[in-house]
Amino acid sequence: MSPKEYILLTPGPTPLPPSVRAKLGEPILHHRTHEFGKIFAQVIADMQYVFRTKATTLMMTCSGTGSMESAVANLLSPGDKTLVHSTGAFGNRFAKIQKAYGIEPMTIFEEWGEAAQPDRLRKLLQATPGGFKAVFFQHTDTSTGVVNDIETLAKVVRENSDALVVVDAISGLAAERLETDAWGVDVALTGSQKGLMNGPGLAFAAVSDKAWKAVLAAKLPRFYFDWRTMKDSLPDQETPYTPAVCMVVGQAEALRMIREEGIENVWKRTDALAEHTRKEVAGKLGLKLFAKNPANILTGAWLPDGVDGNKLLKEMLAEDKISIANGQEKLKGKIIRIAHMGHITKADVDAGIAALGRRLSKVGV
Amino acid sequence: MSPKEYILLTPGPTPLPPSVRAKLGEPILHHRTHEFGKIFAQVIADMQYVFRTKATTLMMTCSGTGSMESAVANLLSPGDKTLVHSTGAFGNRFAKIQKAYGIEPMTIFEEWGEAAQPDRLRKLLQATPGGFKAVFFQHTDTSTGVVNDIETLAKVVRENSDALVVVDAISGLAAERLETDAWGVDVALTGSQKGLMNGPGLAFAAVSDKAWKAVLAAKLPRFYFDWRTMKDSLPDQETPYTPAVCMVVGQAEALRMIREEGIENVWKRTDALAEHTRKEVAGKLGLKLFAKNPANILTGAWLPDGVDGNKLLKEMLAEDKISIANGQEKLKGKIIRIAHMGHITKADVDAGIAALGRRLSKVGV
Repeated sequence: MSPKEYILLTPGPTPLPPSVRAKLGEPILHHRTHEFGKIFAQVIADMQYVFRTKATTLMMTCSGTGSMESAVANLLSPGDKTLVHSTGAFGNRFAKIQKAYGIEPMTIFEEWGEAAQPDRLRKLLQATPGGFKAVFFQHTDTSTGVVNDIETLAKVVRENSDALVVVDAISGLAAERLETDAWGVDVALTGSQKGLMNGPGLAFAAVSDKAWKAVLAAKLPRFYFDWRTMKDSLPDQETPYTPAVCMVVGQAEALRMIREEGIENVWKRTDALAEHTRKEVAGKLGLKLFAKNPANILTGAWLPDGVDGNKLLKEMLAEDKISIANGQEKLKGKIIRIAHMGHITKADVDAGIAALGRRLSKVGV
Repeated sequence: MSPKEYILLTPGPTPLPPSVRAKLGEPILHHRTHEFGKIFAQVIADMQYVFRTKATTLMMTCSGTGSMESAVANLLSPGDKTLVHSTGAFGNRFAKIQKAYGIEPMTIFEEWGEAAQPDRLRKLLQATPGGFKAVFFQHTDTSTGVVNDIETLAKVVRENSDALVVVDAISGLAAERLETDAWGVDVALTGSQKGLMNGPGLAFAAVSDKAWKAVLAAKLPRFYFDWRTMKDSLPDQETPYTPAVCMVVGQAEALRMIREEGIENVWKRTDALAEHTRKEVAGKLGLKLFAKNPANILTGAWLPDGVDGNKLLKEMLAEDKISIANGQEKLKGKIIRIAHMGHITKADVDAGIAALGRRLSKVGV
């Protein structure tokens, strides 16, 4: 079978650079060797560079959701009061994970497409005697394409409480600016398959000293996701259990590319491509943009009334070999989401918009 | 950097067949597409073939240890009585995971190198009023290279209790015979990087109808490892969260190879290579074999007194580019472990034994 090339405009997995693909296909290394240890240690150091942190940074073999669960299981104890400031499906997932562990989080639900409002957060923090153990945010919520102002939100938390600031940066990292240390983020989480330009299967957590105190005191059960054993293995350049070796080697190459370009330049490039996409989607296609505070990771837009988004995207995938994301949950079939992060190029976006335009014309829009 | 070829005689990761490596390096697919769904469904069907089961079979993105934790979290409730029949480091790990979740398992410890003894199991089951919710076994324990007689052990459990039979077949599957359905195994677990000839990062669980009743009633917390959501996603040919797409595509190719050869032929080939290795290690090298009931996955052997195993294996890796495994925990530096499963060939084993022989001669053995 010959490889089949799709244009992926999906918010993860994003396309793999050819040099990353070449690394994935190399003869495998054993994970308890000096050679692999060096690669792993470089990945950790490069992740600190991308997270903009000096904090302990950990790697897990799992999808992004696994890293969200690791934050819950490592930081919390039964009876802890927590707050989730939700801006979409992934904020809601943070609440679901906590409920699975018997924690009953308080949740601020923003209207889908709205960013987290610092004023609502401040009022709730001030009205909550005893405060919260931790407050959970999304850097960007992939379901809606909004970016949250983490700098301000973290400041509001610090000024009004003692709570830990936990940020899911799974879709936002290496696309939108995130200053983990400078903004006072205690835990930042991410996955390998978005801005990090690798396939899915790895996740990372940057954990501040303040958060480590919580980790050592936390009472929720954890083993595979136990950050303590991961930290203990770092000096030996190892993980406690066999990591996804091939994905680590691929990740090292993708991070080398990010280092070479410079993270600030990655942000600028993504910013420019996002602006181009919004202009084309709103201007050329005449679609109404979905997010009020649009992220640079993807552009969400309403389909015109009467257009069946499910059918349109399915046909586009089968016939044009272009993969654009559907809306999630209540937005399924109603909005489209065009990603523009990681290794996605302007040519990819233009091809997607041209194909989408032709299909909308055909159905009379 | 050019790829560096090692001879891997380690019990996971095992070497990747070239066609699997080619698949890992293909342009990535999106995981919510019909094309990927077909590949995923084929992997599940092929895993049922390899497990010898018609039971619901699930895929997780994690290392083998994650699948062990998934069994604990999905089958048990606080206060459940369990039994671990341990034959080494990985049996002990089953107990540690349960303790992390507040379960206090009873444990039968066999001497390292001994297989699980059905008589000890029978006596304990008969002496335990109220019985156990589940009994946990290793198919083969990678730390010692023993194979357990799962057919007999499962029979003893069934004849003396109502407990679920849970088998970690992470290192044994697709190397040693395992008849999940015919032997009455309720849960069989495995990882992708051993007999399955793929890189690490995927794990699988075959779950019987009897075990599903326990899953629905179990009260331990779980989200990422929740088998219920995994099962619910199977009809849509999906996983609940983004799977390690590249590893799934690689796994499909490795399973195609296993199907082509036939699982019974895979067992026979591994059996013959194991016998050859034991003969060479005991005969040509004159080393004392470690396991009393040696598995076909690897051969463990004592190093002669005065030989520093840590140094020897490190030098062999650096200078001969041959990776042989050290002993684990209390056996570190004292035994060597030469794997012969998956894509490891007779030529690989012969090269490893020749190099080992030269190094032993040099230190005067």
